[in-house]
Amino acid sequence: MAYSPLLQQLLQALRCLPGVGARTAQRMAFHLLERDREGARALASALIEGLERIGECECCRMFAEDALCWICASVERDAALLCVVESPADVIAIEESGIYQGRYFVLQGRLSPLDGVGPEELGLKLFEQNLAKGEVREIILATSSTVEGEATAGYLGAIAQQGNIRVSRIAHGVPIGGELEYVDRSTLSRAIAGRNSLEHE
Amino acid sequence: MAYSPLLQQLLQALRCLPGVGARTAQRMAFHLLERDREGARALASALIEGLERIGECECCRMFAEDALCWICASVERDAALLCVVESPADVIAIEESGIYQGRYFVLQGRLSPLDGVGPEELGLKLFEQNLAKGEVREIILATSSTVEGEATAGYLGAIAQQGNIRVSRIAHGVPIGGELEYVDRSTLSRAIAGRNSLEHE
Repeated sequence: MAYSPLLQQLLQALRCLPGVGARTAQRMAFHLLERDREGARALASALIEGLERIGECECCRMFAEDALCWICASVERDAALLCVVESPADVIAIEESGIYQGRYFVLQGRLSPLDGVGPEELGLKLFEQNLAKGEVREIILATSSTVEGEATAGYLGAIAQQGNIRVSRIAHGVPIGGELEYVDRSTLSRAIAGRNSLEHE
Repeated sequence: MAYSPLLQQLLQALRCLPGVGARTAQRMAFHLLERDREGARALASALIEGLERIGECECCRMFAEDALCWICASVERDAALLCVVESPADVIAIEESGIYQGRYFVLQGRLSPLDGVGPEELGLKLFEQNLAKGEVREIILATSSTVEGEATAGYLGAIAQQGNIRVSRIAHGVPIGGELEYVDRSTLSRAIAGRNSLEHE
């Protein structure tokens, strides 16, 4: 037995973190115990407080500490625009770009009948309630470009079009600064199929 | 502001873990909040319990839940052998090899006067108390092969030799299975300088 019981328990617990295996767990545990007990204490209480108080926004399913998340609660956001994403991390990525001033809807997944993820799991009832308020003028579908992501986008598009709302899909293609020779085949074929004509004005 | 205050606090707290930057902290926090709240709860309580109950062994400075660590407390260990290492991780590495049945002494560092690490910080008083018990017959110096590690080994060797105890240093050289052409220069020079004569029996 190389570890004492409590140490073993701590190592095991650290492995719930994504990307943390046995070696990394040991390095983390020893670092905290040897050199950063204060940090470990702060981590434990941040976890407890976070678990207790961070839930889902009643309107968009983003993380929220109150009934509404900080985006839905903001009066500066354009309620006419609704961007649909798969996960909270997608919201953060778009927020960090600083380019978008509308609201979001977080699916917390994508349609995947084989995994038991249907419209209910994605909160589509809440999504339709959002649309029923009548404020939304355009829905931007920003689900992933995987098969499930595309299927989800199609499904959501059909719902939204019933309500006479403009539906758009984020553009896929060659990333800015990306060199053609290093871009993968499916991105390239998407970039060519989705080419835009240049209007001479 | 891309995060809510509590989320920000959790991200900040996760960064006390070694090797965890802003991106990884976000991935960890979102994973725990979205998919493994149970694991996060277990982690928080393992941290709290560990901090409260894991201290230093009174005899060897290894992590210990009681006054003595599980190695010092074991009656099966050979008290005549004392292996001196720099950190608890070194103890684990040697334990995992399964090759050593003696006891340890963990310095929790190495002599480094510029960083304010002197004999006191390495617990050398406790080390000498260990030797004074008269059980130890051989000290194996397993400090690292850095300049400070070698200096520490030299210093400890001098202390131990006063007490008429055999002092040895772990062997440095080409790792087993290592190919000469990929071994670094200082390891090679050490392997040649420290060559052993083959006796014909």
